[in-house]
Amino acid sequence: MTSILSSSPSTFLPSFTSTTYVYPHSKHLHYTTRAHAHAPLRLRATLSMDKEIPQSERPLTFLKQSESDSSSTIRSRFEKMIRETQDSVCNAIESSDGGAKFKEDVWSRPGGGGGISRVLQDGAVWEKAGVNVSVVYGLMPPDAYRAANPSSHSSSPPSPVPFFAAGISSVLHPNNPFAPTMHFNYRYFETDAPKDAPGAPRQWWFGGGTDLTPAYIFEEDVKHFHQTQKSACDKFDPSFYPRFKKWCDDYFYIKHRDERRGLGGIFFDDLNDYDQELLLAFSTECANSVVPAYIPIIEKRKDLPFTDQHKAWQQLRRGRYVEFNLVYDRGTTFGLKTGGRIESILVSLPLTARWEYDHKPEEGSEEWKLLDACINPKEWV
Amino acid sequence: MTSILSSSPSTFLPSFTSTTYVYPHSKHLHYTTRAHAHAPLRLRATLSMDKEIPQSERPLTFLKQSESDSSSTIRSRFEKMIRETQDSVCNAIESSDGGAKFKEDVWSRPGGGGGISRVLQDGAVWEKAGVNVSVVYGLMPPDAYRAANPSSHSSSPPSPVPFFAAGISSVLHPNNPFAPTMHFNYRYFETDAPKDAPGAPRQWWFGGGTDLTPAYIFEEDVKHFHQTQKSACDKFDPSFYPRFKKWCDDYFYIKHRDERRGLGGIFFDDLNDYDQELLLAFSTECANSVVPAYIPIIEKRKDLPFTDQHKAWQQLRRGRYVEFNLVYDRGTTFGLKTGGRIESILVSLPLTARWEYDHKPEEGSEEWKLLDACINPKEWV
Repeated sequence: MTSILSSSPSTFLPSFTSTTYVYPHSKHLHYTTRAHAHAPLRLRATLSMDKEIPQSERPLTFLKQSESDSSSTIRSRFEKMIRETQDSVCNAIESSDGGAKFKEDVWSRPGGGGGISRVLQDGAVWEKAGVNVSVVYGLMPPDAYRAANPSSHSSSPPSPVPFFAAGISSVLHPNNPFAPTMHFNYRYFETDAPKDAPGAPRQWWFGGGTDLTPAYIFEEDVKHFHQTQKSACDKFDPSFYPRFKKWCDDYFYIKHRDERRGLGGIFFDDLNDYDQELLLAFSTECANSVVPAYIPIIEKRKDLPFTDQHKAWQQLRRGRYVEFNLVYDRGTTFGLKTGGRIESILVSLPLTARWEYDHKPEEGSEEWKLLDACINPKEWV
Repeated sequence: MTSILSSSPSTFLPSFTSTTYVYPHSKHLHYTTRAHAHAPLRLRATLSMDKEIPQSERPLTFLKQSESDSSSTIRSRFEKMIRETQDSVCNAIESSDGGAKFKEDVWSRPGGGGGISRVLQDGAVWEKAGVNVSVVYGLMPPDAYRAANPSSHSSSPPSPVPFFAAGISSVLHPNNPFAPTMHFNYRYFETDAPKDAPGAPRQWWFGGGTDLTPAYIFEEDVKHFHQTQKSACDKFDPSFYPRFKKWCDDYFYIKHRDERRGLGGIFFDDLNDYDQELLLAFSTECANSVVPAYIPIIEKRKDLPFTDQHKAWQQLRRGRYVEFNLVYDRGTTFGLKTGGRIESILVSLPLTARWEYDHKPEEGSEEWKLLDACINPKEWV
């Protein structure tokens, strides 16, 4: 049996960035990697990714002409939302930095769609800030569709299934050890019914989240951050914040350390058990909450004086960030296995990180308090 | 069916360090991880590891009393060899540093055996140097044995299988960007026949290697390093060096970068198709070659003047080291999944590392030459 992993080129998913490399969640699609028969140590994921083609300028839309005419579709409105979010977040980041500018890479994908990667590095306030969007579509091989729809068995395999994936993702690492790192991503997936199985269901789902990773706890900052997430959630469903807060604590778990990467926020995936309009509005609300949740914290902390010890502790926590992203993060690990654009996938890694042997913060110290909150997630609001 | 991953405590493998966390090679034993039924995001590898117990002093041997009386066994001689190697390498490292001393942690394992971890950090010459030995034994759950011996089917499962594993592992990261990182490890495994399947074969195998990871190429250094490995190999079999040199190039491959971690050396695993005495002697020769292969290079390079740019490039290459160890190295990934001693497993990571977005060395530059040699492995001798 062939699988999505042995399919021909120009079929499936594009490169995305970092913790939001767009990947089909395991509930929907299942992948395995295979060893190349003659080179067992050079494992090749045979899911072929389109090679991105650099573009000289941003298109008005990455959608097909026929679709972009109809600006009322979820696809079109989701693209508009993530591109506006990219602009507003980048403007806020540049403005807080006071000098450094984002470098932009625009790319297209022969199979359909493209993306805009923006990175600001070595700024006055920002060590490394990446804000990427991508909007891609194409044909999903039959096996992937069958994996996604185990109930739709058929003796003759359906033809490839049209899919659509769009998302924004961002990791923002400031220089000052009292200014926290933040990550967010929001994404939307669709599959159409295959042409030769017209009764098969069309599927869609939303995913995303926003989370904070400080090296030192300023309780008012963490409360403000979580309160902003909660307020966004509460506009839609009172169950959202507690549910997505816990999901976030569970997701950003570094198993081998028995600690979380940071102090959480919200995270959700595979969301399709609400009205599509409601989830689009909810994702938009979350994305719009990024700047007000985060930038006021940066403004308060970006110029605080700090010592080499503070910086070394921040660097150790950045090491944990690297461990989480390379070992556990689904977007990153899927991206590495499937040959996505490495620089986009790994832009989430900090500029610098540190690993000390057997480092243990002194009990009761500020470093210990952060670690304790990463080990024992707290309710902040 | 239960598996080794759901077996009771005090059964299987111990913590080892880094790229030589002792793991059963996939040819012999197969493992999978399972999601915990009620906590899908907190994947728990249920292979229980003994919690190491710190000891106040080094025992003369980690072997059982009955075995240590018989100093002629391979086990006993392998332990002696790795402990002597640990002493001689640590002495050479301290001597080249001129001041810093190793910190030693001795531990024992309730199920059988123990280890000695030594780490030197923030020295004059060494950023981070770890040299660990461990000698452990106990009972391997029946399923692991069956996986290791697929031909020995039996309707009633055999009782747990006695196993023995010993090894030395080391990663040495100097400060000076012109002084290369080196890693080596040598290890020996045994399983006995299970008591209720007396006809089943007793198994043993050797593994190990020594490899060099410079940030800049001094051709004479790389030639000296490879020549020393080749000379050690050639004393035993002229096929060893070419075979193990290629194995090393294949093993330390960072697939998502399509480049190797460094400039290789030798690597072998699962070796049991030669006389046991020969392989013990070969492993001993390789271990004895570590100091003469490496320390002369350090002496020549440790005090060379360098710029911030040289240091930044070294740090970028350290980032690649982190990527390889966290994403691909079998010892590290097995160790992280099975709950070994994290500080021992991750002592291989450099003190500091760096990730720049889309960094590309200028063609023809010294940095480019290193990268080229990591992408296209060369014959050095």
